[in-house]
Amino acid sequence: MNASVDVDQRLGPEDVRGSVAHVRMLAARGIVSADDAKKIEEGLARIGGEIERGEMTWRADREDVHMNVEALLTERIGEAGGRLHTARSRNDQVATDMRLWTRSACARTASKIDRLIAVLSVRAAGTIDVVMPGYTHLQRAQPVRLAHHLLAWCEMLERDRGRLEDAAKRMNEAPLGAAALAGTTFPIDRAHTARELGFERPMRNSIDAVSDRDFLLESLSALSICAVHLSRISEELVLWSAQEFAFVEMSDRFTTGSSIMPQKKNPDMAELVRGKSGRVIGDLVSLLVLMKGLPLAYNRDMQEDKRPAFDAFDTIDDSLDVLAGALATARFESERMRAALVEGFVEATEIADWLAARGVPFREAHHVAGRLVKRCVDAGKTLPQLTLDEYRAEHPSFDESIFVAIEAETAIERRDVLGGPARKQVSSQIAALRERLVARGVDWAKESSALGAIEGAR
Amino acid sequence: MNASVDVDQRLGPEDVRGSVAHVRMLAARGIVSADDAKKIEEGLARIGGEIERGEMTWRADREDVHMNVEALLTERIGEAGGRLHTARSRNDQVATDMRLWTRSACARTASKIDRLIAVLSVRAAGTIDVVMPGYTHLQRAQPVRLAHHLLAWCEMLERDRGRLEDAAKRMNEAPLGAAALAGTTFPIDRAHTARELGFERPMRNSIDAVSDRDFLLESLSALSICAVHLSRISEELVLWSAQEFAFVEMSDRFTTGSSIMPQKKNPDMAELVRGKSGRVIGDLVSLLVLMKGLPLAYNRDMQEDKRPAFDAFDTIDDSLDVLAGALATARFESERMRAALVEGFVEATEIADWLAARGVPFREAHHVAGRLVKRCVDAGKTLPQLTLDEYRAEHPSFDESIFVAIEAETAIERRDVLGGPARKQVSSQIAALRERLVARGVDWAKESSALGAIEGAR
Amino acid sequence: MNASVDVDQRLGPEDVRGSVAHVRMLAARGIVSADDAKKIEEGLARIGGEIERGEMTWRADREDVHMNVEALLTERIGEAGGRLHTARSRNDQVATDMRLWTRSACARTASKIDRLIAVLSVRAAGTIDVVMPGYTHLQRAQPVRLAHHLLAWCEMLERDRGRLEDAAKRMNEAPLGAAALAGTTFPIDRAHTARELGFERPMRNSIDAVSDRDFLLESLSALSICAVHLSRISEELVLWSAQEFAFVEMSDRFTTGSSIMPQKKNPDMAELVRGKSGRVIGDLVSLLVLMKGLPLAYNRDMQEDKRPAFDAFDTIDDSLDVLAGALATARFESERMRAALVEGFVEATEIADWLAARGVPFREAHHVAGRLVKRCVDAGKTLPQLTLDEYRAEHPSFDESIFVAIEAETAIERRDVLGGPARKQVSSQIAALRERLVARGVDWAKESSALGAIEGAR
Amino acid sequence: MNASVDVDQRLGPEDVRGSVAHVRMLAARGIVSADDAKKIEEGLARIGGEIERGEMTWRADREDVHMNVEALLTERIGEAGGRLHTARSRNDQVATDMRLWTRSACARTASKIDRLIAVLSVRAAGTIDVVMPGYTHLQRAQPVRLAHHLLAWCEMLERDRGRLEDAAKRMNEAPLGAAALAGTTFPIDRAHTARELGFERPMRNSIDAVSDRDFLLESLSALSICAVHLSRISEELVLWSAQEFAFVEMSDRFTTGSSIMPQKKNPDMAELVRGKSGRVIGDLVSLLVLMKGLPLAYNRDMQEDKRPAFDAFDTIDDSLDVLAGALATARFESERMRAALVEGFVEATEIADWLAARGVPFREAHHVAGRLVKRCVDAGKTLPQLTLDEYRAEHPSFDESIFVAIEAETAIERRDVLGGPARKQVSSQIAALRERLVARGVDWAKESSALGAIEGAR
Repeated sequence: MNASVDVDQRLGPEDVRGSVAHVRMLAARGIVSADDAKKIEEGLARIGGEIERGEMTWRADREDVHMNVEALLTERIGEAGGRLHTARSRNDQVATDMRLWTRSACARTASKIDRLIAVLSVRAAGTIDVVMPGYTHLQRAQPVRLAHHLLAWCEMLERDRGRLEDAAKRMNEAPLGAAALAGTTFPIDRAHTARELGFERPMRNSIDAVSDRDFLLESLSALSICAVHLSRISEELVLWSAQEFAFVEMSDRFTTGSSIMPQKKNPDMAELVRGKSGRVIGDLVSLLVLMKGLPLAYNRDMQEDKRPAFDAFDTIDDSLDVLAGALATARFESERMRAALVEGFVEATEIADWLAARGVPFREAHHVAGRLVKRCVDAGKTLPQLTLDEYRAEHPSFDESIFVAIEAETAIERRDVLGGPARKQVSSQIAALRERLVARGVDWAKESSALGAIEGAR
Repeated sequence: MNASVDVDQRLGPEDVRGSVAHVRMLAARGIVSADDAKKIEEGLARIGGEIERGEMTWRADREDVHMNVEALLTERIGEAGGRLHTARSRNDQVATDMRLWTRSACARTASKIDRLIAVLSVRAAGTIDVVMPGYTHLQRAQPVRLAHHLLAWCEMLERDRGRLEDAAKRMNEAPLGAAALAGTTFPIDRAHTARELGFERPMRNSIDAVSDRDFLLESLSALSICAVHLSRISEELVLWSAQEFAFVEMSDRFTTGSSIMPQKKNPDMAELVRGKSGRVIGDLVSLLVLMKGLPLAYNRDMQEDKRPAFDAFDTIDDSLDVLAGALATARFESERMRAALVEGFVEATEIADWLAARGVPFREAHHVAGRLVKRCVDAGKTLPQLTLDEYRAEHPSFDESIFVAIEAETAIERRDVLGGPARKQVSSQIAALRERLVARGVDWAKESSALGAIEGAR
Repeated sequence: MNASVDVDQRLGPEDVRGSVAHVRMLAARGIVSADDAKKIEEGLARIGGEIERGEMTWRADREDVHMNVEALLTERIGEAGGRLHTARSRNDQVATDMRLWTRSACARTASKIDRLIAVLSVRAAGTIDVVMPGYTHLQRAQPVRLAHHLLAWCEMLERDRGRLEDAAKRMNEAPLGAAALAGTTFPIDRAHTARELGFERPMRNSIDAVSDRDFLLESLSALSICAVHLSRISEELVLWSAQEFAFVEMSDRFTTGSSIMPQKKNPDMAELVRGKSGRVIGDLVSLLVLMKGLPLAYNRDMQEDKRPAFDAFDTIDDSLDVLAGALATARFESERMRAALVEGFVEATEIADWLAARGVPFREAHHVAGRLVKRCVDAGKTLPQLTLDEYRAEHPSFDESIFVAIEAETAIERRDVLGGPARKQVSSQIAALRERLVARGVDWAKESSALGAIEGAR
Repeated sequence: MNASVDVDQRLGPEDVRGSVAHVRMLAARGIVSADDAKKIEEGLARIGGEIERGEMTWRADREDVHMNVEALLTERIGEAGGRLHTARSRNDQVATDMRLWTRSACARTASKIDRLIAVLSVRAAGTIDVVMPGYTHLQRAQPVRLAHHLLAWCEMLERDRGRLEDAAKRMNEAPLGAAALAGTTFPIDRAHTARELGFERPMRNSIDAVSDRDFLLESLSALSICAVHLSRISEELVLWSAQEFAFVEMSDRFTTGSSIMPQKKNPDMAELVRGKSGRVIGDLVSLLVLMKGLPLAYNRDMQEDKRPAFDAFDTIDDSLDVLAGALATARFESERMRAALVEGFVEATEIADWLAARGVPFREAHHVAGRLVKRCVDAGKTLPQLTLDEYRAEHPSFDESIFVAIEAETAIERRDVLGGPARKQVSSQIAALRERLVARGVDWAKESSALGAIEGAR
C-alpha cells in the first residue's frame, strides 16, 4: 500500500520541471554551487527525456515518482544529486507537481471542449433549415430549429470551459518553498521558482500550501458538471437513435450493429459516455470524502488524491473526443424531425394565435384550437391535413392563410426574440460563437471545411 | 407530491421582483397598457410587502409560489392580473427566480465568510506571540505561530469566497423571455428585463435558458468545498479541545458541560459543523444525480432543485456564524501550545542545523541530534532540560548558544521565508488580508476593537 | 444550531415507548420504587397520547425530544420524573429511539413495496395478451409481453423488500443500558428492556451501542437502490408517455395537461419520482460523509443523522404511493405496442430461424432475413406487409407458413424458457408472485377486484 | 472507448467456468453434439489454465473477455467453437460472469474481515488488564478496558460480514439463459447451468436477469459501510499515535520515520486506509449514478460497472490486510492510557457515587466532586494525588476507602452490566466471539499463538 509510483509516475515530467526550477533558484541564491546546479540540471534533462520517450524504468522499491527521479539522478551524477532536495520537502514538491499537472490538464480539456463546440456550431450552421419539435417533459412542445438545439449544447459547454479556466487561474500559485509546512531556514527565493514555473505568485501561507487540495476539488467539480452535460447530450443521442424517434443516424464507428437487422444500430458510444458521468461524479465524491475532517497540514491520506484526479480528466477527455467524432459524422434525419412536428400538433398554438390576432377572445381561440386537435386525433390526421371546411366547421373566421400560419417555418420565424429559434437569431448565435472560438485560437475554417465534406456526403 | 409551495414560497420576493420587471417591459413595449401595468405593479408591490412581513397566506391548492402570487393578484386587481403572464412561462419564470435568489445567497454567504476571515485575522494579530507545533500526519513537526496557522484557515476561506464570486458572476444572465423554451411571438425586450433585474445580459439561447441548472451545481460545488474546509477547522477545534491537546478553551456558548466535571467541555458546536459538511455534500450529490441524463428542455424533475439549494446555503451560513462566534470567543492556551513544542522535540532540526552551520557534515549532525533526542526520551527530559555537558557528551562543538538556538522563537524567526512563520512574514500576511477585507467593505476597526475587548479579558 | 427538537420531535412516540420499558425494568430491579414507576408510566402514557394526537407543545428551549418529554413529565408528576433517567444517558436513549423508529419505517416501506408489487402483478395478469418490443440499448430487440416487462419491475422491488427486511433484522438489537458508553453501576437488566421493546437481544458491546449508526447506513443503502429502481421505472413511464412511443396514457391525476393541446399530457409524477432518486442518494452520501473518520464513542456530529434518515424514508414512501396510483390507473396502449413491434422488424430473427429449421445454413439464413428487412426499409413496408412473392424473391423455400411464424405471439411462445415471455412462463411467474404476496399478508383478491374495475373501464 | 478487455479480462476464470457449464447443458439437451461439447470443454480447460497461469494474451481488437475466449477457442478447435455461443448472448453471459466474480469476492472479503476480527480479539484477550479512558466528543468520559474498545471494533466488523453474506446470498441466482433479454427458442435447461455454477436457482425473469446490477450496488453499499468503519478505526490509530495521546506505537512496517527524530513515527498506513474510504464511497456513487434512470433491459452504460466493483473490493481487501498487520504488531502503551485516565478526572463520577451511597443527596454529592476537581485543576494535581485532608475539606464523610473507590479498576468492575467494561463481561464477549470465529472456520489457536509471541515480545 505504501508504494505509489504505479500511479504517480504520471507526474514524471512535472517533477523534473519543478526540480529544474528549484535547482536554478538554489544556484541563483548560492545555496548550491553553479557547478552542482549544472550537473543536476543536465541529469534532470536526461531523465526528463527518458520519461517522455517512455524509457524510464520506475522502481516500486523507490516508492514514488520523486524518489525515483532523485535516486536515479544521484546514481548518475553522484553526491551533487543529493543537494537537489535542499530547502524543500516532498510535501511542497508533490503539491507543486500536482498543480503543474492539473493546470495543463485544464488547458487540454478546455481545448477539447472547444473542439466539440466547433463541431456543434459547424453542424448548426449546416443544418439551419432543419426544423424539429422542442421538448418539455419529453413531450413535443414548440417548433425549433435543430441548430437552435445544438447551440443550447454549446452554451452548456461554454460554461464548462469557463469553470475550468477559473479553476486553472485560481490554482496558479506556487506551493514550492513551503517545505514540510513551515518554510525553510535557507535563503530561498520563492518568487523565482514561481516565475520559472509559470505560476502567478507564490502561495501566501506555507501551512496552507501543503494542506490544500482545493485545486483538485474545484477542477473535479467543474468536470462533474461537464459530465452531467455530456450525459444529457448522450441521453438525447440515445433517444434520437431509437426507432421511435429516428432523428439521427450515428455513423458505424460509434455504434454497434446486427448482421440480421441492418436498420438496427445500438448507440454504444453515447451510452458509454452517459454511463461514464457516474465515474467522474464518483471521483469528486472520493476526493470530498478524502479531505473531510483532515487536520492541517499534510496527511498521508492525500496521496489518494491522484487516482481520482487522473481518472476524472481522462474520462472527460475521452468522452469529449468521442462525442466530437460522433457528432461530426452523425446524419440528422430532417424528414423525421419535421414529421414529428406535425404529428405532435405543435401548430395548435399558432392556430390560437391566428384567431386571437383576428379579434377572437383568447380563451375561445384556445378552445377552437383544442377542438381541431381533437378532430385530428379522432380522424387520424395531422393539422395540415384538415381541409379549410373542417377548419371553418370549428370557427367561421378561418381562411387559406391558416395553412401558411401553421407551417413550422412560419411559427419559428414569428419567434424572433433574442436567443430564440428564428433564423436571424440562430445565425447571430452561430456567428458570435464562431468569433469566440476564433479568439480562442480554434481554426474555424479548417473545422468547417472538414465537416462540410461530411455534410455534403450525407 | 405535486404542490411545491411549502418549499418554493421562499422565492416569493424574487418572484414579485421578476414580475415587476416583466410588466414594466411589457408596458414599455406596448404589450400591456400603461394602465394595466400600473395596476399590476401596485398589486405586486402590496403582495411583496405582505411576503416580506410574513403576512402572506400560501395556499397549497395554488400549487406553487408563482400561482399563489398571480392568483392573489388577479383576485385583487381583476382581469389585468391575468395579463402579467403574457409572453412568459413558468419555465423561464422559475429559472429567473432561482437565479435571483442564488445570486443574493452567494453574496450573503460571501459576506459571512468575510466576517469569519475578519475574526480569524484579528485573532491572529492578537496572538502573534503564541508559538505552537505545526503538525504533519498529526505528529508534531516544526514550530510555527498560532497566527500562522489561523492564517492558513483564512487562505482556505479566501478561495471559497473567490469561487462563490465566480459562480455569482457566471450565473448573472437572464433566462426571462425564453418562455416555455422557444421564446415568444410577442415583441418583448429581453435586454430591458435583464437590466431591470441587475443581470449582465439575457441568456444567449432560449432552450438552454430553461434547461440549465449549472448555477446551482456550481454554487453547491463551491459550498461543498467550503464545507470541507469548515469540517477541517472544526476537526482541529475538536482535537485542540481534547484534554490531550488542551490548546483551546471554547466559550460556554459553544460547548456543553457537565456539572460534575467542571473542566470538561464538549465541543458540540464544532462537532455539529463537522457533521454538517456531510449534509452539504449530500445536497450537491442530489443535484448532480437529479440532472444526470435529463434531455432538454424543462423536465419536472427540476422542481427538486430547490430543497438542496436552500439547505446547502442555510447550512453553510449557520456554520459560518457558529464558527465566527466560537473563534471570536475561544481562549487559546499559549502555555500548553509551547509545552507541546518542547515535549515533541521539534528542536532536533535546529540542533542539526546549528552543528551543520559549524562545519559538521550534515549526516553526522543529524545523528548527533537523534542521539540527543534518544537521551531525552530515556531520561524523561526535554531538549532544553539537557545540560551543556550532556550536549557535549554527544558532540564537543556545543556551547551555550545552543540553548538560544533551540528556543521556539529562534527557530521560527530563522524561517523568514515568504509565507513562513517568522514574525515579519506573518505580520505582512495579516496586513495584506486586512487590506483585502477593507477593500471588500469590512469594518476592520470595529471587528478589531470588539475582539480586542475579548482578547484583553481572557 | 444546538436545539434539535424541530427535527427529532418525530421520535416522540419512540421516546415514550423506550422510557416506559426502561422504567418497568427499573421497578422490576428495585432501582425505582413501584410507586414512582407507576406515576412515571402514567405520566408517560398521557404524554404519549398527546404526542399522538398532535397536542404536544415542543419547546426549543428544552433542546431535544428527550428533554421535552422528561421536563414535561417532571413538571406534572414532580420529583419522581427525575428518576426516569437513572441508569441511562441520552446516548443510549437516542440510539434506542432511532432503532425503534427505523425498524417501523422499514416495515412501513416494505408494505408499500408490497402494494406496488400487487398493483403491478394484477396489471400483468390483466394484460397478458399485450405484446410489445423488448429493448436493449433503447432499440427494439425482441418481442415480449408487457406482463413480462411489468414482472421485471416486480423482481427489482422484491429484492428491495428483501434488503429492508435484512436491515430491519440486523438492527433489531437494543442499545439501551449502554448509558453514556460504559454501562452503568446500577444493577439493570438489559434483557428485560430489550424484550419489552421487541428487540431480539441487547447489543453485545456498550461502546459500539452508542457509536453505531450502521442501521441507518444500511437502510439508506437499501432505499438508495430502491430509488434507482423507481427512477428506472419512471424513466420508462416518461418514455412510454412520449408521443413517439405512446405506449401508455397516464391518468389525469398523475399528469398535467394543456387546454390547447388535449392530446398532450406531461408525465409530471413520473418525472418527480425520477428526480427524487437524487434526494435519497444524497441522503445516503450525507450519512456516509458524516460518519467517516469519527472516533468512538458518541460524537455530536451524529445528531445530524435524523434529517437524512427521515427524508429518505419519506421520499421513498411518497414515491411508492405515487407509482402505485399511477400504475393502477395507467392505460396501456396495446395497439401502439404491437405496431412498434412490426415497425421494428423484430421478426427478422424469426425469419432466419424459420429458414434454419428448413436446413438453410445459419449464415445464409441471416443474410436472407437482412435482405428482406432492407427491402422493407426501401419500400416503407413492414415484414408482414411483404407478399409471399417478395419473400420468395429472396429465397425459394418460403411458403405461407412464414406469415404465422413472424406473428409476435408465435415468436413469443417459442421462447418457452423458464423466466421467458411465453404465456405459460409469465402466468407461472404471476402465480408465484401472488403466492408470495399472500404469504406476506397482501389481500390479493381485493387488489385484484379494485384494479379489475379499472382494467375493464379502460 | 469501445474495447473493455483491459478491465474485464479479470473475469477470465469466471467466463471459462460459465462457458463450461453452458456447454455441458447444451450437450445434455442435445443442442450440441457430445463430440463438439467435448472439444469445447477441453479447449476451455486449456484456456482456463493459461489464464490462471497468466499466459493468456488478451487482444484489444477482440474487444472484451468473452470474445477473446471464444475467438481463441475457435482458432484452436475450429467450427465447434462457434457453437458454444448457441442459446446465449453477451448480455446474460456477462451478468453470469460478474455474479460469479462478486460472489467469490464477497467470500474473500468476509474471510479477511474474520482475520481482522481474530487479530483484534486475540489482542483484546492479551490486554484485558489495560485500562483507558472511554471518550465521548473526544473528551475523556469514563474508564473502560482497552479490550472493551477493541471489541467495539469487532462488532462493527461482524455486521460488515453479515451484510456481505446477505448480499452474496441474494445475488446467488443465475441469469444464464435469459439470452439478450427474452430467453431463447432453444430447449435449454436453466436449472442445469444454475446448479453447475453453484447458484441457488435461475433468475425468475429474463428481462430483469440482464438489466439488474443490484448485486453490485448492494455489495458496494456493504463495502462502503465497512470503509467507514475502517476509517473510524484508522482515525483512532492516528489519534493514539499522536504524541499528545501516545496510546499506541505502531510497528515500523506500518509507519514512516525520521532519521533525526527517532521518537517520531508517522502512522502512514492508518492514514492511507482512512483516505481510501473515500475511494470506496466514490465507487458506490459511480454505480448509483450509472444506473439512475436507465430503461430496461441491457444498456451499454452497464459496461462501466466493472471498474468500480473491482476497485472497491480491492481497496477494502488491502485495507483489511493492512489493519490486521498493523494491529497484530502494534504496541499498546498501557501506562499512558492509565495516566490519561487520572489526568482526565474521570474518577469524579465515582466520588459522587461514593458519597451518594453514604446518604449524601445526589445533587450535593455532585457539587462536592466538582469542587474536588476544581481543587486539582488549580493545584495541578490529579484526584488520587489529593490527600485525605483535602478530600475532607470538601466533605467530612470521606475516609481512606475513597482511594480504592477511585481506582480505575474499581470503577470499571462496578460497571458489571451486559456489554460493559467489567472483566467478566469483556471475557465473555471474547469467548463468544471466539466461538463464532471458530464456527466460521478460523483457526483461533494459530492466530492466538502467533500473536502471543508478539504480545510477549513487546
